Amino acid sequence: MNTSSVTAIAHPNIAFIKYWGNRDNILRLPMNGSISMNLDGLCTRTTVSFQPSLPFDELIINGREVTGAGLDRVSYILDIIRGMANIHDRAEVITENNFPSGAGIASSASAFAALAVAGSKAAGLNLSEPELSRLARRGSGSASRSIPGGFVEWQVGTTDEDSFAFSIAPADHWKLVDCVAIVSASHKKTGSTEGHSIAPTSPLQAARVADAPRRLEICRKAILEKDFDAFASIVELDSDMMHSVMMTSTPALHYWKPASLDVMNSVRMWRTNESIPACYTVDAGANVHVITLESEAHIVEKRLREIKSVEDVLVAHAGGPATIVKNSD
Amino acid sequence: MNTSSVTAIAHPNIAFIKYWGNRDNILRLPMNGSISMNLDGLCTRTTVSFQPSLPFDELIINGREVTGAGLDRVSYILDIIRGMANIHDRAEVITENNFPSGAGIASSASAFAALAVAGSKAAGLNLSEPELSRLARRGSGSASRSIPGGFVEWQVGTTDEDSFAFSIAPADHWKLVDCVAIVSASHKKTGSTEGHSIAPTSPLQAARVADAPRRLEICRKAILEKDFDAFASIVELDSDMMHSVMMTSTPALHYWKPASLDVMNSVRMWRTNESIPACYTVDAGANVHVITLESEAHIVEKRLREIKSVEDVLVAHAGGPATIVKNSD
Repeated sequence: MNTSSVTAIAHPNIAFIKYWGNRDNILRLPMNGSISMNLDGLCTRTTVSFQPSLPFDELIINGREVTGAGLDRVSYILDIIRGMANIHDRAEVITENNFPSGAGIASSASAFAALAVAGSKAAGLNLSEPELSRLARRGSGSASRSIPGGFVEWQVGTTDEDSFAFSIAPADHWKLVDCVAIVSASHKKTGSTEGHSIAPTSPLQAARVADAPRRLEICRKAILEKDFDAFASIVELDSDMMHSVMMTSTPALHYWKPASLDVMNSVRMWRTNESIPACYTVDAGANVHVITLESEAHIVEKRLREIKSVEDVLVAHAGGPATIVKNSD
Repeated sequence: MNTSSVTAIAHPNIAFIKYWGNRDNILRLPMNGSISMNLDGLCTRTTVSFQPSLPFDELIINGREVTGAGLDRVSYILDIIRGMANIHDRAEVITENNFPSGAGIASSASAFAALAVAGSKAAGLNLSEPELSRLARRGSGSASRSIPGGFVEWQVGTTDEDSFAFSIAPADHWKLVDCVAIVSASHKKTGSTEGHSIAPTSPLQAARVADAPRRLEICRKAILEKDFDAFASIVELDSDMMHSVMMTSTPALHYWKPASLDVMNSVRMWRTNESIPACYTVDAGANVHVITLESEAHIVEKRLREIKSVEDVLVAHAGGPATIVKNSD
């Protein structure tokens, strides 16, 4: 058995075309494809070592031991890895996020991407990028997109085998910046896993899914051609469509707060009335990701900070792939 | 020719299942049926007299002469009436609203209902309620619902002949109250007529329309059985579905302001956490209609007034049909 202690880092990502709802909740096969950008500067750093002496898997997040559902979700991925590598040792998983939880940036994407990379390598496997993306997907759908670098598309696929993400352009292709307007640091009431499972209860979800190939094509083309106007329209439309589905689910999920709408309406006005290249997108939470060009990022950040209900602004550029940073074998 | 000066009043209405989008923009045949409640206390009072001496139709709203598009829309209805009555005289139309414009209550419904009633009678016609509802519909779709009294359903119909509204329960059937939280008195940027015409551009409109018969049935049943919980869920769902379509149209229509969301989120919390029977519905504007029971109306009004961004609260009970109040012939 060729196991070792491996450390990997992965970035969270912000989706421009959103993932919401699964065809298969266990395999996390999505209802529609999605497109995202990795967020540089923000990362999860995870070390995995399989140890014969351990009676159980151990998970330490930001210095604190985690048990229960959090550990179960990690063990589920470790079980898949153990099955692939044909090993039986339990693992110690030590993980740290350099960004605060509740900052409007889900840590599950970077966490499961880093776990997939570090865990598979520590188990002696040498997985390809698509294989790593598929493995990360099993822990959190959006984690599949944190494996490749830069601008990433997660193709919907038809089975576990072909539902993975790949890079459509490297991080330096287009100097986009995500200014995250933090309007609420409180933890969201309904997590994404539960949210995905109720997406089919919305009378609007089927229409949103059926229209997804069109939105994906417009967004992909806008990124490849660096066409900010086309990009802005489709990104806001897609975000509003996901929240339309969320709001009309049973139970209804209302993630927007008044402050979210304040930022969204402001950004739209800046773009429409002043030709400032900025658009919003909102995940399953209240904070607003404002996407802009690097050249305008300082103006956008300054304006966001001037909005009274904005508590803080995080700024992130396009980031690279999940990578191994330390391998002790 | 048997013409006279006739005065009619009609109430605005608040839709519980919304009308949004037309199959026929000229005839104002709707994409889906709708259900509403007339609003007592608020009304448009309109006097119509056909006069041989007039070279043109004249329109006076709240003491001011109106020309241009506003007059054209009234003359269009007067032309239909003249055609039906086989008369050719131009008319003087004097109309007054007892509620402020920009108060979150569209005046077009009560205005065209009062015009249909007063105008047809002044032309010597004796139209049935369905005929009056169809005539009012030609001026403004929702005006068809201000003809019958109390709780009203506008059946979608298949042609001009069968697309009219009828009462499903009288005003005293259920003591519902509409507390209109005024958060913005500014005039909306995009009017309903233009909004209806772009509804098909939303990828979600077809799904919203296809699901309408289900929502209509749930709402109708909840009203007939006075089941507030069932009523509240379907009313909020329907409002959110209409705004989902609006937000995802091209161009996108965003009517909600931060203060709207503040009221909406508050109302939902009062109901969920404190079992206060209240729910929200929002038309093509920022103001929020909070529907509650008469027994709770004082509490709901008081709480709404405590929300900082609420400028004023209008309170209206269920109202009666459009009626003739004066006939000088």
